[in-house]
Amino acid sequence: MSNTLFFTPGPTQLYPRTDVFIKEALEHDVCSISHRSQAFKDIYYDTTNALRELIGMPENGWHIFFTGSASEIWERLLTNCCEKESFHFVNGSFSKKFFQYAQSLHINAQKHEVPFGEGISLANIKGNDTAELVCLTHNETSAGTMTPVEEINKAKELFPNALVAVDTVSSVPYPNYDFDKIDSLFFSVQKCFGLPAGLGVWVVNDKCIAKAEQLRKEGKVIGAHHDLLELKKRGVANQTPSTPNILGIFLLGKVTRNMLNKGAEQLRKETEHKYNLLCDAITQHPSFDLFVKEEYFRSKTVVVADTKISPSEINEKLAIDGMQVGAGYGDKKKTQIRIANFPAFSVKEIEKLCEKLSEI
Amino acid sequence: MSNTLFFTPGPTQLYPRTDVFIKEALEHDVCSISHRSQAFKDIYYDTTNALRELIGMPENGWHIFFTGSASEIWERLLTNCCEKESFHFVNGSFSKKFFQYAQSLHINAQKHEVPFGEGISLANIKGNDTAELVCLTHNETSAGTMTPVEEINKAKELFPNALVAVDTVSSVPYPNYDFDKIDSLFFSVQKCFGLPAGLGVWVVNDKCIAKAEQLRKEGKVIGAHHDLLELKKRGVANQTPSTPNILGIFLLGKVTRNMLNKGAEQLRKETEHKYNLLCDAITQHPSFDLFVKEEYFRSKTVVVADTKISPSEINEKLAIDGMQVGAGYGDKKKTQIRIANFPAFSVKEIEKLCEKLSEI
Repeated sequence: MSNTLFFTPGPTQLYPRTDVFIKEALEHDVCSISHRSQAFKDIYYDTTNALRELIGMPENGWHIFFTGSASEIWERLLTNCCEKESFHFVNGSFSKKFFQYAQSLHINAQKHEVPFGEGISLANIKGNDTAELVCLTHNETSAGTMTPVEEINKAKELFPNALVAVDTVSSVPYPNYDFDKIDSLFFSVQKCFGLPAGLGVWVVNDKCIAKAEQLRKEGKVIGAHHDLLELKKRGVANQTPSTPNILGIFLLGKVTRNMLNKGAEQLRKETEHKYNLLCDAITQHPSFDLFVKEEYFRSKTVVVADTKISPSEINEKLAIDGMQVGAGYGDKKKTQIRIANFPAFSVKEIEKLCEKLSEI
Repeated sequence: MSNTLFFTPGPTQLYPRTDVFIKEALEHDVCSISHRSQAFKDIYYDTTNALRELIGMPENGWHIFFTGSASEIWERLLTNCCEKESFHFVNGSFSKKFFQYAQSLHINAQKHEVPFGEGISLANIKGNDTAELVCLTHNETSAGTMTPVEEINKAKELFPNALVAVDTVSSVPYPNYDFDKIDSLFFSVQKCFGLPAGLGVWVVNDKCIAKAEQLRKEGKVIGAHHDLLELKKRGVANQTPSTPNILGIFLLGKVTRNMLNKGAEQLRKETEHKYNLLCDAITQHPSFDLFVKEEYFRSKTVVVADTKISPSEINEKLAIDGMQVGAGYGDKKKTQIRIANFPAFSVKEIEKLCEKLSEI
């Protein structure tokens, strides 16, 4: 790998030793084995079990499936777990896209939207008993806002008839979810897992599958590719409906086992320690300012700063030391930087980034 | 990579030097760059241009898009290019799945089906002017049957109001398509391109996009993720709607350029030469018999043989020399073998396989 460190919020720096894991995959013909072979089933089993342990998913009543991306899961969730009405908490570009997917699918999509950079509190939200699916985004990669697990946990009371789905694309395994309070979560691997893009991970409970079953029984279209019933039918046999990104599933298992060696709790502590270092560096810099004002709603894994120096100038200077941060999202491209605080980065690497940022 | 040669029909043997291409990708941070960066746009442009040249796709009026898999494209084609009625030529398990996808999507799916192992001739087919999408499978990976390009070319006359889509998953770049006679073709990369699975390639013309536009204008649901309008909007800027399998797109460009160095015509000649070697070896063996009787309909890229020796016993013996063939598909698992004749294999390797098969 090159000597550049990509503190970009996805795709991002590859997890340490990803090159070694890829070499191992090639040596073991992981890219040539059949997706119906025992060798593949072993990989599927190992990866899903490691993930289950890492995120604290219950052994019974829950499943882990693989798709092409997390964006694909937005659509699959909406077609499989919602017929008429969804409710979306929108606090940035990605939660908005999730909402727009529902509109494209002709679902009556309701939303509670807050301005870019502001957090979502469920304290004063008026729920309803008509929504079938509530969509929350734990970590808004565009704005650097976090919807804390404590807030997510309030959704089920407010929407008693809804399944609760959490987009946790750029935060898992940081959040410690209460699996009694949610029904689905999903992510992609090119963020916190530091892996090549092209794999989505979809975690669902039996209630989601029952909803898909009910919709199909009622004669509704729940899609054809990667519908929940087919994913489950194959998944219980440690298989996928069609040939998946086998290399990606293998690498995800390797990185997850690596994370487990450290432990989820230790990962969280390190994430918070590195986050504090980044916040300090930004606060102390005369040209930078933390974009998300309320600490409670500030993402711990993607730190966004307003900047008076252009992101391209910052990256030109960081490039001398082989580092790169992300530019702001959309119309914040020239006025914000986004810094990934993913498990791939050591405390030392974040310290070095903070030092170099302070010298700009 | 290991010393085993996987003559399995997908996933299969990696294309020569794939490990070197992966190393190059890692050295150039291909897995860390943003999918909105110029570096990614350059990769997208290079890969799609190389593919265009290899398959002889016209420069104007045609597009190449990327998805998670070819199975995903079955659904996207049906939702974007067909509202009410499709027509499917079914001659094996994969063309049947394509048909079943249409049923799952509540499309009035008509079919012309022939027994497993028999070819599809369009000579005596009664067409209609109601089908909006005609679905043909050039190469049935399950049965080893081919629907020759000459047959595919008859579809437009029989179905004057339909778009013609060709599943060419396990044959491209062997078939020399007439782009005036088709509207879409698609494939995945873990077959003839010998690459890690997890990437689908969708080739469409402007008529397909116009159909998607018309359906959306009429208020029909054409999906949300990877719909043709979004794929085109991003594709013209050498981008994808969401983060794609960037490594896969990079590797596909490398392998395609490699194939172009040889030339499509030379690849076809080599494919036919290796196919003849395989057919001779099977015909001459007392325990093997070519499954597809009519040469005209026999796949040139996946050769299927009935066997009196069980596939597992064959593979046990081949393993001594570091080789493996595929077992039969579905209920033919114990009575047939399937041999991939993809560009990844040299004439010498096929000769060696034939020699070892003859010794069993």
